[in-house]
Amino acid sequence: MLRLSPPDGLRLSQAHTFDAVYGGSEANVAVSLAQLGLKSAYLTRVPDNGLGRAALGAVARYGVNTDKCVLGGERMGVYFIEFGAGRRGTTVLYDRQNSAMATLSSGMIDWRSALENAPWLHWSGITPALSQSAADATLEALKMAKSLNIRVSCDLNYRDKLWKYGKTPDQVMPQLLQYTDVMLGDATAFELYFGIREPNDAALLKSVLAAFSQMTHVAMTNRQGHSASHNTYKGILYDAQNIYTSQTYDLPNMLDRIGGGDAFMAGLIFGLHPANTDLQEVIEFAVAAAALKHYIKGDYNLSSVEEVRALMAGNTGGRVSR
Amino acid sequence: MLRLSPPDGLRLSQAHTFDAVYGGSEANVAVSLAQLGLKSAYLTRVPDNGLGRAALGAVARYGVNTDKCVLGGERMGVYFIEFGAGRRGTTVLYDRQNSAMATLSSGMIDWRSALENAPWLHWSGITPALSQSAADATLEALKMAKSLNIRVSCDLNYRDKLWKYGKTPDQVMPQLLQYTDVMLGDATAFELYFGIREPNDAALLKSVLAAFSQMTHVAMTNRQGHSASHNTYKGILYDAQNIYTSQTYDLPNMLDRIGGGDAFMAGLIFGLHPANTDLQEVIEFAVAAAALKHYIKGDYNLSSVEEVRALMAGNTGGRVSR
Amino acid sequence: MLRLSPPDGLRLSQAHTFDAVYGGSEANVAVSLAQLGLKSAYLTRVPDNGLGRAALGAVARYGVNTDKCVLGGERMGVYFIEFGAGRRGTTVLYDRQNSAMATLSSGMIDWRSALENAPWLHWSGITPALSQSAADATLEALKMAKSLNIRVSCDLNYRDKLWKYGKTPDQVMPQLLQYTDVMLGDATAFELYFGIREPNDAALLKSVLAAFSQMTHVAMTNRQGHSASHNTYKGILYDAQNIYTSQTYDLPNMLDRIGGGDAFMAGLIFGLHPANTDLQEVIEFAVAAAALKHYIKGDYNLSSVEEVRALMAGNTGGRVSR
Amino acid sequence: MLRLSPPDGLRLSQAHTFDAVYGGSEANVAVSLAQLGLKSAYLTRVPDNGLGRAALGAVARYGVNTDKCVLGGERMGVYFIEFGAGRRGTTVLYDRQNSAMATLSSGMIDWRSALENAPWLHWSGITPALSQSAADATLEALKMAKSLNIRVSCDLNYRDKLWKYGKTPDQVMPQLLQYTDVMLGDATAFELYFGIREPNDAALLKSVLAAFSQMTHVAMTNRQGHSASHNTYKGILYDAQNIYTSQTYDLPNMLDRIGGGDAFMAGLIFGLHPANTDLQEVIEFAVAAAALKHYIKGDYNLSSVEEVRALMAGNTGGRVSR
Amino acid sequence: MLRLSPPDGLRLSQAHTFDAVYGGSEANVAVSLAQLGLKSAYLTRVPDNGLGRAALGAVARYGVNTDKCVLGGERMGVYFIEFGAGRRGTTVLYDRQNSAMATLSSGMIDWRSALENAPWLHWSGITPALSQSAADATLEALKMAKSLNIRVSCDLNYRDKLWKYGKTPDQVMPQLLQYTDVMLGDATAFELYFGIREPNDAALLKSVLAAFSQMTHVAMTNRQGHSASHNTYKGILYDAQNIYTSQTYDLPNMLDRIGGGDAFMAGLIFGLHPANTDLQEVIEFAVAAAALKHYIKGDYNLSSVEEVRALMAGNTGGRVSR
Amino acid sequence: MLRLSPPDGLRLSQAHTFDAVYGGSEANVAVSLAQLGLKSAYLTRVPDNGLGRAALGAVARYGVNTDKCVLGGERMGVYFIEFGAGRRGTTVLYDRQNSAMATLSSGMIDWRSALENAPWLHWSGITPALSQSAADATLEALKMAKSLNIRVSCDLNYRDKLWKYGKTPDQVMPQLLQYTDVMLGDATAFELYFGIREPNDAALLKSVLAAFSQMTHVAMTNRQGHSASHNTYKGILYDAQNIYTSQTYDLPNMLDRIGGGDAFMAGLIFGLHPANTDLQEVIEFAVAAAALKHYIKGDYNLSSVEEVRALMAGNTGGRVSR
Repeated sequence: MLRLSPPDGLRLSQAHTFDAVYGGSEANVAVSLAQLGLKSAYLTRVPDNGLGRAALGAVARYGVNTDKCVLGGERMGVYFIEFGAGRRGTTVLYDRQNSAMATLSSGMIDWRSALENAPWLHWSGITPALSQSAADATLEALKMAKSLNIRVSCDLNYRDKLWKYGKTPDQVMPQLLQYTDVMLGDATAFELYFGIREPNDAALLKSVLAAFSQMTHVAMTNRQGHSASHNTYKGILYDAQNIYTSQTYDLPNMLDRIGGGDAFMAGLIFGLHPANTDLQEVIEFAVAAAALKHYIKGDYNLSSVEEVRALMAGNTGGRVSR
Repeated sequence: MLRLSPPDGLRLSQAHTFDAVYGGSEANVAVSLAQLGLKSAYLTRVPDNGLGRAALGAVARYGVNTDKCVLGGERMGVYFIEFGAGRRGTTVLYDRQNSAMATLSSGMIDWRSALENAPWLHWSGITPALSQSAADATLEALKMAKSLNIRVSCDLNYRDKLWKYGKTPDQVMPQLLQYTDVMLGDATAFELYFGIREPNDAALLKSVLAAFSQMTHVAMTNRQGHSASHNTYKGILYDAQNIYTSQTYDLPNMLDRIGGGDAFMAGLIFGLHPANTDLQEVIEFAVAAAALKHYIKGDYNLSSVEEVRALMAGNTGGRVSR
Repeated sequence: MLRLSPPDGLRLSQAHTFDAVYGGSEANVAVSLAQLGLKSAYLTRVPDNGLGRAALGAVARYGVNTDKCVLGGERMGVYFIEFGAGRRGTTVLYDRQNSAMATLSSGMIDWRSALENAPWLHWSGITPALSQSAADATLEALKMAKSLNIRVSCDLNYRDKLWKYGKTPDQVMPQLLQYTDVMLGDATAFELYFGIREPNDAALLKSVLAAFSQMTHVAMTNRQGHSASHNTYKGILYDAQNIYTSQTYDLPNMLDRIGGGDAFMAGLIFGLHPANTDLQEVIEFAVAAAALKHYIKGDYNLSSVEEVRALMAGNTGGRVSR
Repeated sequence: MLRLSPPDGLRLSQAHTFDAVYGGSEANVAVSLAQLGLKSAYLTRVPDNGLGRAALGAVARYGVNTDKCVLGGERMGVYFIEFGAGRRGTTVLYDRQNSAMATLSSGMIDWRSALENAPWLHWSGITPALSQSAADATLEALKMAKSLNIRVSCDLNYRDKLWKYGKTPDQVMPQLLQYTDVMLGDATAFELYFGIREPNDAALLKSVLAAFSQMTHVAMTNRQGHSASHNTYKGILYDAQNIYTSQTYDLPNMLDRIGGGDAFMAGLIFGLHPANTDLQEVIEFAVAAAALKHYIKGDYNLSSVEEVRALMAGNTGGRVSR
Repeated sequence: MLRLSPPDGLRLSQAHTFDAVYGGSEANVAVSLAQLGLKSAYLTRVPDNGLGRAALGAVARYGVNTDKCVLGGERMGVYFIEFGAGRRGTTVLYDRQNSAMATLSSGMIDWRSALENAPWLHWSGITPALSQSAADATLEALKMAKSLNIRVSCDLNYRDKLWKYGKTPDQVMPQLLQYTDVMLGDATAFELYFGIREPNDAALLKSVLAAFSQMTHVAMTNRQGHSASHNTYKGILYDAQNIYTSQTYDLPNMLDRIGGGDAFMAGLIFGLHPANTDLQEVIEFAVAAAALKHYIKGDYNLSSVEEVRALMAGNTGGRVSR
Repeated sequence: MLRLSPPDGLRLSQAHTFDAVYGGSEANVAVSLAQLGLKSAYLTRVPDNGLGRAALGAVARYGVNTDKCVLGGERMGVYFIEFGAGRRGTTVLYDRQNSAMATLSSGMIDWRSALENAPWLHWSGITPALSQSAADATLEALKMAKSLNIRVSCDLNYRDKLWKYGKTPDQVMPQLLQYTDVMLGDATAFELYFGIREPNDAALLKSVLAAFSQMTHVAMTNRQGHSASHNTYKGILYDAQNIYTSQTYDLPNMLDRIGGGDAFMAGLIFGLHPANTDLQEVIEFAVAAAALKHYIKGDYNLSSVEEVRALMAGNTGGRVSR
């Protein structure tokens, strides 16, 4: 997806230029994993034009394989984002109707050839929010993944400006999540998708995981928004046995919070693959990765394992390395 | 329409920022007329979001009234333009499917209130190229204009990447042109729309005008493209009696040729309203206005009557005014 | 007025480019009112050159009518502003001597035609600070407004780098304020203009309002400047009966505080026109509008009523709307 | 003087940023001489603010001594320049009324201390065009220069938008030129200043030099403006004995022609100081220096002697040096 | 290599920002081949820091495989380039001493694993110009290529600011060229490397090819530099039987001529692989590809086969595709 | 040294442009002193190319004399700096091997002529960290300074990415510091250079000063790094009799902390020269100067004495001066 944002905190109506980056939840996870040193590949559909090629180049530049992506469709999905500051919040204007990804349908991607030899498939709840055919293609991929014994993770990624094609998430997501081992969500998504509400995070994660017998881990993030420039952030992980809660990061003077959740998701996959037995370290790593993302422009978390670990080890960011 | 172009001659696949201007054929004519000192108003439909409001503000900034525009629809039409140079031509990538203007339909604009007291209505062949409903709305406007005894002009504006909704121009345009007094076109459009081909420009204009009994003037422009940076340009006007051919302008080191035809059209309206009896001067003015436009960034011809007349009087541009 | 500022927090002596916006206290109020959905018009005098036309276009772009502005005079008023950060304060360098506005004099603007049918006239204490002739023209306007039974508001806007023409504010302002219904000021202005000093804000507002028998409302703002990047801000309103004090907004990571007072003033006019009986809501709205302005670049408060109300309702800015 | 220009060929009314450089005829000559390896100093008056200090820093950066400049006055002179292209000419909007330089008057600069030990003083016809007091100060400087036996040169620099203080050049310049040894002008200036018109350049130079008994050399440049992007340029020098005409340079794709004449003047001073006996080489050097200036942004000719000589030797610019 | 250039035609001494692209002769050929639809991989050594990773990302972004590149060495090679215009030529300032590539030595790259399965290896005369160890590594690669029966091409790429390590090209290049099938050069390189000089291009190519018994094709380009903005360009190819001369392209208003020769080289490889029997078309394709490169910013020729063929077919660039 | 930084908080691997400033510890001190109104000169060696000349021009622009600098050497030292924000720290990548300064050696600078008549010489511990020959040249300068009875100051400036030539600081610095009167350091440097560690700052300064019999003052700064955007900062000065501790400055929203220590050093020299008897004011001035530097982009502290004193007097930065 092409993300267009007015520079320097301008509003849409003031902009004479737009900064352009290519991102999207799955792309962001793929880049983040590549930056953490894992081999990663991205599967998507983009139009066969300069924008589509630029989108693939954008992830290839950061080490992601795009060999199995397909070209086609009418247009690139676009979103405009007006970055806020202080008391003015950030707002998104989607323009992704009829995008190449929204018109993805079953049979377009050769999932078998794309997935064989892969140990892990990650998908986002945004894809089935776009259209019925995209939801169908997601199901197709998930079935193939399971038939190949691939581990599957999902970030629920609820967006209230999507889901416009006549279905609500609770009609679509539970079926897809039958094929998922590791799930990331938040309280809003859990309620809207599964009708589950609980008085605290631990109870919530327990109820949610109980609803999916095949699922091994469920995680959630908790963000407090003091202002558009200052948040706090933590993560919680449940493995059907214990609840692991990370430290809470104070995030002042944020540069770009888009992709924070994707950085968390990539950190989680990094920690669980191969199975890491220290789940406290897993959740701490995922949250530290997400914290760094807030200080990197664009959608991608361009942080190395060493940088994430330095933050976990107490580096405040206040020292110049020279 | 939002026009997005990579800066500094970059290709789409290289762009990290896009320059943004709002234009479109009718908007360009309206701005040009306001800059020439005439009162002008713009009628369009834009989405009710920051981009839509920015589009209206862009023409209001240059003196065009937008009080009768309507807000609605799903999205702003967008086009990406990759400016060429030298041997690399300029290319356009349209992304205007389902735009607020493409989904304009009859009844959305209150044509009577918008047009009463107006002496002239200008329309572009791009509007009926977008969708059947936009073509219907155009017809609605034209009928109202004629019922109010308003003079009507049309720029055929043939675009081969449009007309995708199942109709060809020859099925749509001749009917609409029944309500038009002054028409601007070129050899390609005349053949595709009316099936008229002639061995020279004079014969062509005569045949075309003969096909529309109510039409008073038909004009065409003739552009030679030596390179993406260097064109030559002239115009020809026929009033059913005489052929008037302008001088030919050499246009080296062009800055932005988009909107050149709209600048010509505005110059023509300026000259014919109120009826100018020196048609040679009319065509010279229109072509000089168009020539200046090639040296102004963005879609609009921000030239004054004095500046156009100075070029007509032989100002080569080579002297610094200080 | 043309405002030129070095980009990215550079100092004047470092600048190789300047960001240019057109503003000024009355223009800012007019734009803010238009963005809040009211019909607004701007009355000023600008030179008949590209800068003057750009200044008018800048407000027209945001919906303000400029039909009654006059062209003339030698030059556009300019000010250079060096935006500070943290411990380095923002500084202004005025260059507005002999500007078109400073040489405005009685008779130049046709106040009757400009004001008839208008329900409200707002003026700023900056205009009479420029020159005797500008003060005279202000008086001329005020008398016309009163003769037409128009409500009048004034922002005292004390600037210690102005008032260089031989008069002090206490010699000029009291007379002009005889024609004013709603006044905005602060403790410094009240003392310098009227010689009124009181131990607290409530007492001050009461004494000030007591000095002008025709005045219906007097308001003041209270700003604490913790650093160039972080202020707190509140407002107080008095209607001769009650004192209404707004909540105090914490304003971290400010983008551009210029025009904050004008945003407040526009919010106040919005609330009082037509007479709003809930004055607590009026002052809360005005302060929330001003708070948002600190996060919008340029002089203008480009906030909608919905956005102001969302902040009043507790939106911290910390959530992304998507 | 602060020069503000819209970037990328935009018009004034389109600009949201201005490029800022500090220049002016004498500053440009001083920088050019320093770049050619001569010791040079600049004498001017600038306001005691960030802009004034930036102006002095701008020439100091390129090796010019500013120790004798004085701080004072109300404001920095400003001019806005809208760079043209192709058929649209470049235009200048002066805003230098009441500038520190326009209010320069006799006694402000200590000419004796500034000039003693200097071998050459160069002045521009722009200074006496600003105000009577600036003309008086010029005369003061010239008298001191002559009393110190310093060689003096002048570039007539006629600007029709100046000379607004009640005097015409013919009333002021002849007296000042009594103290000048080397003069640069053009046909327009010679006619306006001295009433001398001749059928060809050679005759013109002869008549002009005959009018000033103390003058040793008079030169003129001849520019043909094919378009705003393409000029041709040559120079002619007369030493009371022979006429020396340079080759004509074709100047396509010009970047910035402002300061071309100043680059010529500096090349002339460089050639005549110390007296160069090969005047053909002198005029060729001056013109080649001016030709290079057209390809350097800003007012200054940042070319070395080697670069000027390479152009004289036939370097077309078409080869990459690597 | 990191290329840093002042923007907008500024000189080095004026620059406050530098535009950064990563290129180099072999990288440019690799990207160009990928854009023409061939699978291509790049072999180099870059330092293990952010710049090194950015350099690899820059080619990966355009479809080039970098899996076999090695990380190491002290620093990234840098060059500063000052783009000229008109009469001011472009100049390069190399800063590549001790770069990761200059300190490449035998054994660092696993040539067998890198080359096996590759049909073609291209190398540049720049590598052995950097250091003895880089020349040794080149020889190592070439021997492996020949042992694997891979076709080899070389662009002589003479740079007079390199070859500073104590050897001259004639001492190094002839041996390396024993392992080369297809060679690109020009008259200067042929004389300096082989001591061969001939009265015309055809005779020159024949003599050169005669000196290398294993070589199948030798090509040269011929560039005329009218100015820094305007060149003409053609190519000549000899296959031991016939001389094939391309049309001559007029290249006005060039955007960036760096990489023109690399675009030609890639076009030649594209044409000869697999063996194309129409060598006239091969040379026309290579020259048209090079011509387009002059209108693309950065080192890379981002042109598709369709775009190159359109130019060959007579597209002047003067028409807007819309 | 040329400092290249990605704009807007981008990472090195994201940068398509670099912001360029010229700085370095001694240059920064020299500029800061000139801005405080003292006459200052800079002594360095830069390559004889556009970058070297730009480096000298950069300090000359702010009033520093560069007449005694020498041109020579192979290359300009470069460093890349990736500015962090919030939780992501700032990092430096040095590329200064073989720079003109690293290859400075004894005899290259005529220290006698450069230093005679100077009252003070300041040197940085960075110079002897570059190479043995640079350390030797430093010693040469120091001996000359002492022979001329010039006061000498040193900022230890420990950088752990330097000292790569085979010596450690403790082998080099103590000897050089024998010729130094005023020393600035921090706890890390004192331990690494002299093996002195103490439980508190006062004890540390006393032990350090005791180790150098000729030294009159030793100072240290104490920085707390809450995040990359927010530090606190104070200074301590010891004159062999009393310990003077400044107030602690809170530094939120920092713009550019590079050069903070140099601003402190310049403030210290300003205070001690001529001997200021109020050492509490000296340390307060130095720290306030350093505090302001954190809000000025680039290496230089472009603050005036008045601005520093206003901060000392309690100006929070929160008020607009207008």
